[in-house]
Amino acid sequence: MGLVPLPASMSQEAKPTADTYEMFLDHVRKYHYVGDAAGVLGWDQQVMMPEGGTPARSKQSSTLSTIRHELLTDDDLAAWLDDLADADLDGEQQAVVREVERAHERANAVPEELVKRLSEATSNALPVWEEAKAESDFSMFEETLEEIVELRREYAEAIDPDRDPYEVLFEDYEPYLDIDTAEAILTELREELPALIDAIADSDVELADPFEGEYDEEAQEELVRSALDQLNYDWDRGRLDTAPHPFSTGTQFDARVTTRFAPDDPMGAIGSTIHEFGHASYTLGLPDEQYGTPLGSSRNMTVHESQSRLWENHVGRSRPFWQLFAPNVEENLGVDAAPGAFYEHANEVYDDNLIRVEADELTYHMHIVVRFEIERDLIRGDLDVSEIPQVWNDKMEEYLGVRPDNDAQGCLQDIHWTHGNFGYFPTYSLGSVLASQLFAAAERELGDLDDDIESGEFDRLYSWLNENVHEHGCRYTTPDLIEEATGEAFTAEYFLDYADEKYSDLYEL
Amino acid sequence: MGLVPLPASMSQEAKPTADTYEMFLDHVRKYHYVGDAAGVLGWDQQVMMPEGGTPARSKQSSTLSTIRHELLTDDDLAAWLDDLADADLDGEQQAVVREVERAHERANAVPEELVKRLSEATSNALPVWEEAKAESDFSMFEETLEEIVELRREYAEAIDPDRDPYEVLFEDYEPYLDIDTAEAILTELREELPALIDAIADSDVELADPFEGEYDEEAQEELVRSALDQLNYDWDRGRLDTAPHPFSTGTQFDARVTTRFAPDDPMGAIGSTIHEFGHASYTLGLPDEQYGTPLGSSRNMTVHESQSRLWENHVGRSRPFWQLFAPNVEENLGVDAAPGAFYEHANEVYDDNLIRVEADELTYHMHIVVRFEIERDLIRGDLDVSEIPQVWNDKMEEYLGVRPDNDAQGCLQDIHWTHGNFGYFPTYSLGSVLASQLFAAAERELGDLDDDIESGEFDRLYSWLNENVHEHGCRYTTPDLIEEATGEAFTAEYFLDYADEKYSDLYEL
Repeated sequence: MGLVPLPASMSQEAKPTADTYEMFLDHVRKYHYVGDAAGVLGWDQQVMMPEGGTPARSKQSSTLSTIRHELLTDDDLAAWLDDLADADLDGEQQAVVREVERAHERANAVPEELVKRLSEATSNALPVWEEAKAESDFSMFEETLEEIVELRREYAEAIDPDRDPYEVLFEDYEPYLDIDTAEAILTELREELPALIDAIADSDVELADPFEGEYDEEAQEELVRSALDQLNYDWDRGRLDTAPHPFSTGTQFDARVTTRFAPDDPMGAIGSTIHEFGHASYTLGLPDEQYGTPLGSSRNMTVHESQSRLWENHVGRSRPFWQLFAPNVEENLGVDAAPGAFYEHANEVYDDNLIRVEADELTYHMHIVVRFEIERDLIRGDLDVSEIPQVWNDKMEEYLGVRPDNDAQGCLQDIHWTHGNFGYFPTYSLGSVLASQLFAAAERELGDLDDDIESGEFDRLYSWLNENVHEHGCRYTTPDLIEEATGEAFTAEYFLDYADEKYSDLYEL
Repeated sequence: MGLVPLPASMSQEAKPTADTYEMFLDHVRKYHYVGDAAGVLGWDQQVMMPEGGTPARSKQSSTLSTIRHELLTDDDLAAWLDDLADADLDGEQQAVVREVERAHERANAVPEELVKRLSEATSNALPVWEEAKAESDFSMFEETLEEIVELRREYAEAIDPDRDPYEVLFEDYEPYLDIDTAEAILTELREELPALIDAIADSDVELADPFEGEYDEEAQEELVRSALDQLNYDWDRGRLDTAPHPFSTGTQFDARVTTRFAPDDPMGAIGSTIHEFGHASYTLGLPDEQYGTPLGSSRNMTVHESQSRLWENHVGRSRPFWQLFAPNVEENLGVDAAPGAFYEHANEVYDDNLIRVEADELTYHMHIVVRFEIERDLIRGDLDVSEIPQVWNDKMEEYLGVRPDNDAQGCLQDIHWTHGNFGYFPTYSLGSVLASQLFAAAERELGDLDDDIESGEFDRLYSWLNENVHEHGCRYTTPDLIEEATGEAFTAEYFLDYADEKYSDLYEL
């Protein structure tokens, strides 16, 4: 009798593959741990570090960044990826290989010398942008931004000379959601929202504003801490601090939230705290046992932003939330108003606002569309840097009916392009849109969530998000994750319905 | 005419050496930057991190530690060190090569497998020690400690099988101060101090204690912040926080201080804050432009401890300091007492204290001598782990006239051996001794410093320390640094004179 071939999983070759996968995974973990160490340094720099520490911290952070790059472009890793291409892997292992391979190929494609030039150009750009913004003079920044745009075009070309460079850059933030889908959604927002915004501007309804005067920071801090308590933020795995630009960072074991306070704007602090809580709740929901691998890491920007927007808008800006939370405002700030008054104030639409980060839930997306269209055309070579101020102001007027008086209030307001981050802005709006789609899916499955929210019972919603989004890490690509969670492809339908219903009611349209 | 040979510095061979040195130095900087990044993670873990973050932080920290080890044992580094052995280097460059070579050789000598076993054994030992201490039962810890002692003996043997293993371990903390010098100084303390301590115990003098009752933490924090203000702590390069076990960490750009508060012991908080300030002032005094190299790094434990003890004892426990600082205590704690009363309280000698970290300036050294003699004999194989409790208690009785009732108050009180740190304890006492020698040298050069201290003018003292200690980094070995700074070899003479004079006066001996 001849030898019967063993099935692949039992053959002698299976062992080397299992070993290869383990060595590969150890290397991947090392790469992730260094990244998380860098995250701690970043948090410290923004929240704790004395100002004089900058020169040393820059060296430390850029060294960790170099080490990560070395780990990602490592020859051993390349060899393991080669071996694993033909290996008999399960679905989770395949997902890990897919994610690492993609990052490895991108990192390998870009010459180190270009990485260095980009890093130097963006470092040097920061003070130039700051000064131009202070002087409100875009011409001071023009040459610097031209260089960054040029380097980013080179970067995109190094990765794939045959594709639209903006698409390539967008994939740094959103690797699997194709640019056509993204653009279609942004186009739908641009086409649908202005009518609603115009109707609101024409409405005679004046929404309530229960806040007057100034509120001290300690009282506001107690208030936002009580919000985090209500939302069951896990203080054993998190903390709250202040930062000039609020952010959230960390791992499933330690996901921290920051916020900021303005004396006359407690609603701003509440909104930003709940937003960052949403980010942290996603991070904390990643599986502990997969820490240090793509299965224990968050999916990309759009999904992350969907979690922050879902909690900020669908919970924190909802009527039942203010039924729950109004007593906390009275207790901490002494403001005795009907829950409906807070609800109205949380949802006021400002038709004269020029600043993205101060925008309401609706006009916000028009700010994003302006930036998206400009950066796309810049990177595609269809727009010159020198034309930005004129085009910016024209688009603001066209989409929002307001025209900045100066560059500081216009095209110099955001830091993203100074950092070379072209392709990042769209993910903010895509996140809001996805938040609505996910919230609708959750309500389809769980029934209306108003009672849960009003009674401070967030377990069902949190569990749904955890099971359908958080616990998968990077197991699925973004489109597959959306499909798995909602049963549908990515769509703006739910966001537009939600906006229409909510604001028609508020403004009696 | 034949060719005239060029001098070495102009020859064609000079260029490769200069390049080699630059590549070598870049590598050295990378190694230091990773170490400093790890330092930030350590600070965060002790001061800021929520408890749940431990599993992730352990992974991050041990990864940075692995990367440091890889950088230090790197083949390129070995080759550069070989090349530089014959190179034409100036004194500073030679010092850099000396320091790196020493660290490289130590790291290379120890098998990775032993490093790993040590790291695992000490990690596993921590909870065992904690439980044994909670139960006050050394026998629960005995087997664990035996393993650590054995591994440390193996470690010493790997580095140099021909030398006393305790000497080899001591050099991890104090590489250039030979063990005979260290032992001679500790022996002198053991021989000289008990007579003074006994005389104090027999004295009828009762020192004042102006504190009574409890003081709230916020008021105490304001008080110690005002002490740091008085001492000109650079808040732009530092910060103050609380930690269960106070420490200082950082770089010349960012050297942070921690302290702790007990309601009934403001003097404890003041002392610990000034002690940590001393460490930070050394770190901040390292040259900015040498950051990331041995010339911008502190000399070893003894020198570091000399700076903390100098500020804690020779400034913070001096009569003129309390002339200066008494009003701050009144302002912050409402305690209205004569400066002399605070001075007395700061210097009270406790003849019934069993705990090292609560010891006064004199009996402290007898606690160190007990530990030094025990750990030396353990590592040399002259003492069994099982004998520790008996020997500990006998020595405490012999040197200090007190005998612990139980192991928690005796041989289980310190964490050092659990971490495998044998050879560390002596540097605490050596630091105090060096502090006195340096302070005496400063006063020889500058004249009596009482007026400076009383008027809060610390510039002359700080400049002297900066020029004679801080700014050299690791330019000199410890004995050479002491010789350069004081014109003498390391000696206990100044400490013993200082102690005798101060305490004879206080206790009217």
